[in-house]
Amino acid sequence: MAIATTPLSALSTDLPPVERRAAIPLGFCAAGGVAGIKTSGRPDLAIIATLIDEDVRVPAAAAAIFTPNAFAAAPVRLSRAHLAATEPAGAGGWGWASAVVSTSGSANAATGAAGDADQAQIADDLAEILGAEVDETLLLSTGIIGTRLPVDKVRIGMTAIAKTLSANDEGLAAAAEALRTTDSVVKVATTTISLPDPDGLAVRSVRVSGIAKGVGMIHPRMATMLSIMLTDATVEPATLHGLLRPAAARTWDQLSVDGDTSTNDTVFILASGRAGAAPIAAGTHEAAELGRAIEAVARDLARQQAADGEGATTLITCQVSGAVDDADARAVARAVISSSLVKAAAHGRDPNWGRIAGAAGNATLADEAVLVAAGLTSSAARSRAGTPAELDPDRLRIAIAGHLVFDGAGGGPVAFDRAAARAAMTAPELLVRLDLGLGDGSGEAFGCDLTETYVIENSEYTT
Amino acid sequence: MAIATTPLSALSTDLPPVERRAAIPLGFCAAGGVAGIKTSGRPDLAIIATLIDEDVRVPAAAAAIFTPNAFAAAPVRLSRAHLAATEPAGAGGWGWASAVVSTSGSANAATGAAGDADQAQIADDLAEILGAEVDETLLLSTGIIGTRLPVDKVRIGMTAIAKTLSANDEGLAAAAEALRTTDSVVKVATTTISLPDPDGLAVRSVRVSGIAKGVGMIHPRMATMLSIMLTDATVEPATLHGLLRPAAARTWDQLSVDGDTSTNDTVFILASGRAGAAPIAAGTHEAAELGRAIEAVARDLARQQAADGEGATTLITCQVSGAVDDADARAVARAVISSSLVKAAAHGRDPNWGRIAGAAGNATLADEAVLVAAGLTSSAARSRAGTPAELDPDRLRIAIAGHLVFDGAGGGPVAFDRAAARAAMTAPELLVRLDLGLGDGSGEAFGCDLTETYVIENSEYTT
Repeated sequence: MAIATTPLSALSTDLPPVERRAAIPLGFCAAGGVAGIKTSGRPDLAIIATLIDEDVRVPAAAAAIFTPNAFAAAPVRLSRAHLAATEPAGAGGWGWASAVVSTSGSANAATGAAGDADQAQIADDLAEILGAEVDETLLLSTGIIGTRLPVDKVRIGMTAIAKTLSANDEGLAAAAEALRTTDSVVKVATTTISLPDPDGLAVRSVRVSGIAKGVGMIHPRMATMLSIMLTDATVEPATLHGLLRPAAARTWDQLSVDGDTSTNDTVFILASGRAGAAPIAAGTHEAAELGRAIEAVARDLARQQAADGEGATTLITCQVSGAVDDADARAVARAVISSSLVKAAAHGRDPNWGRIAGAAGNATLADEAVLVAAGLTSSAARSRAGTPAELDPDRLRIAIAGHLVFDGAGGGPVAFDRAAARAAMTAPELLVRLDLGLGDGSGEAFGCDLTETYVIENSEYTT
Repeated sequence: MAIATTPLSALSTDLPPVERRAAIPLGFCAAGGVAGIKTSGRPDLAIIATLIDEDVRVPAAAAAIFTPNAFAAAPVRLSRAHLAATEPAGAGGWGWASAVVSTSGSANAATGAAGDADQAQIADDLAEILGAEVDETLLLSTGIIGTRLPVDKVRIGMTAIAKTLSANDEGLAAAAEALRTTDSVVKVATTTISLPDPDGLAVRSVRVSGIAKGVGMIHPRMATMLSIMLTDATVEPATLHGLLRPAAARTWDQLSVDGDTSTNDTVFILASGRAGAAPIAAGTHEAAELGRAIEAVARDLARQQAADGEGATTLITCQVSGAVDDADARAVARAVISSSLVKAAAHGRDPNWGRIAGAAGNATLADEAVLVAAGLTSSAARSRAGTPAELDPDRLRIAIAGHLVFDGAGGGPVAFDRAAARAAMTAPELLVRLDLGLGDGSGEAFGCDLTETYVIENSEYTT
């Protein structure tokens, strides 16, 4: 991310443009439908699979990021084990996969050995239905913690829904629809880049697409509830993971809806290699280009998730420049969008910059794993994890919705047109900009306002 | 804190009993009144001072804990400088003081050099009015960030209010009243212990009392907005700080109302030595006894602050036993009471144990400073700060309001009487108990439910 010439206008990015539509990359098919897990009768089961070639469901390179929650759900633990079985060196972070199933309505978390057995049964059933290896199945689940999945309904549902698997965009759209829980809208994003073919004589269009669901229990250290990304690029699992992790560090790790990190958070990315482009090696120009495409889709999905946070009426984007480094900038941005007081003020369209300053002044760096993912060396990450971000009130500048409200070097509070600022804050996206005046670091974070509706939705849920 | 014999009943403490009344220790006088900083006309200025002896306002030993927020307000920075001036070895954490003034209505934070000058003027005026050394004044402020204090009104107010300084309990009650902002009730606590006299022949009653205010912008790493504690014990400033810091680590550092750490958070404790007990040396039995008295008052004030959190209808106490150590236990307790989802469920009297498990599974240890304050060595604190707490879902047990709802060793979810649990959750205090089944560590944390009222109160504040 480059710093814009005017530090308090929006930061520019060098990411490729993204479209919000379900565009399925080559080499995949998808479907979604009703298995009856949800009592509402809404779609609750999604399947994504690779294609069959000579009677074999061809495995795709796969990489994953899972919740760090100690209460990781059964599907998280089983998916990690499956990836590790297909490529032990990946230790559960990458490997090979030919099918993904997502169930909505029950998280299958904190369900003990019985829940593990349920999930294993679902994997066995999926493998049998699709003609896939069990170890090549990946599993996602979302819903209430502590309830069991209805394994029989899931099997019957998977059998019926697998018959509708489609390699057209409609299939991916149906899968995205079935991934929703309390999401008010379907979340899809896609981008296309050009990469050289194996001979280096021509270019191929390579697509990266993603579907995702929010909406509560979302916070840094794996912010998304569930997200599945697909690409037809040709890339080894370890390289794919090496592109996914830093992209997530700049996007999902910078997303907070309510400060809670779920037991089920999962991002998968599968690469089919079917676009016909040359294999991508780590560290090359092409790898960087694919990484930007992955980040672009991840960023857009994260923004859709923030905008659709439970009860939210506005997306809050905080962009920080002038930090000592990017890690500090991201910490400050994350602190601002995570503050309940800032979130409540945003809801009231109240340009209360004091709360923004207060939240920024309280920023602490991410934990070690996130800092390493974001590019710090492990020793730097270890020594800086959890330490305060560097901030000098006398150099800080703050702009809310394009209005400069605080200028530390100019004595602090700036007289501004409060009515105009309030009016600007009614837009669907609220941009809060901070320039720390200390260095070249920049970063952003995504959140939403805190509303009465969030409280009402979350004070009665299991009953 | 000892582990109770039945791990899922409330933990017992060895702290002395506390009464909720304004009982002024010997050697102090106090007053509160209206200076007109608040437009509402409510009391907004409190003064506490030592007594005059032979025309000198006798300095008391003083210790302080200040917000770690980089945007520390002018009164915080000035108080730190004053303490450092009276005892350089304390580096602003302890020293000597003869007067404390608290102003409500403006935080005097993020006000730049002008705000610093305002605060220095208030200190000068207070010293002149009371006949105190300027360096022996301590200052507190609370209110909106970024607005200036009306220095003239404050001087006139201090002059009038100083005339009402009283060494009776009524003076402290008036000071506590003037400390309030959006607090719905006055927060006071007191306890008395017996300590030997200088000859060791008799015992003296030594009192520790405190007044405090909440109520929003409260979070670990100095949870209280403002608190002033007074004791008539005889103790050196460094020893006093050595007792205050760990007491705060177990109480205010375990309090969260909304996850925000204010720019003005301050705890002061002043010791007059007027009870006539023997001087207390660090590391002695008597020091431990005074430390428990300080912790008892701090804990009760913290619980009052949690119960009176903005919009709160219930105090949430989370007690954790069976952790690997106390630091882990406190981390888990803090994670539970900080979770927006747990807080919203508490509001709905919804025994949603899955959210408790999810929050516990996401617990990370406090930052280095808090861990050191809580008793860890600095190297242990450095290596453990921000790391996940140890938790094994298969050993965890959870009880909500006395109902066992999860037993990891017994397969997970426990069938419980949901209606009875909901009924028990309507009490003014909700006790959530976790036993981790891993070791002897225990700890607790204090929070409150998240309500529509919190959102409404905080979405319109400056305007």
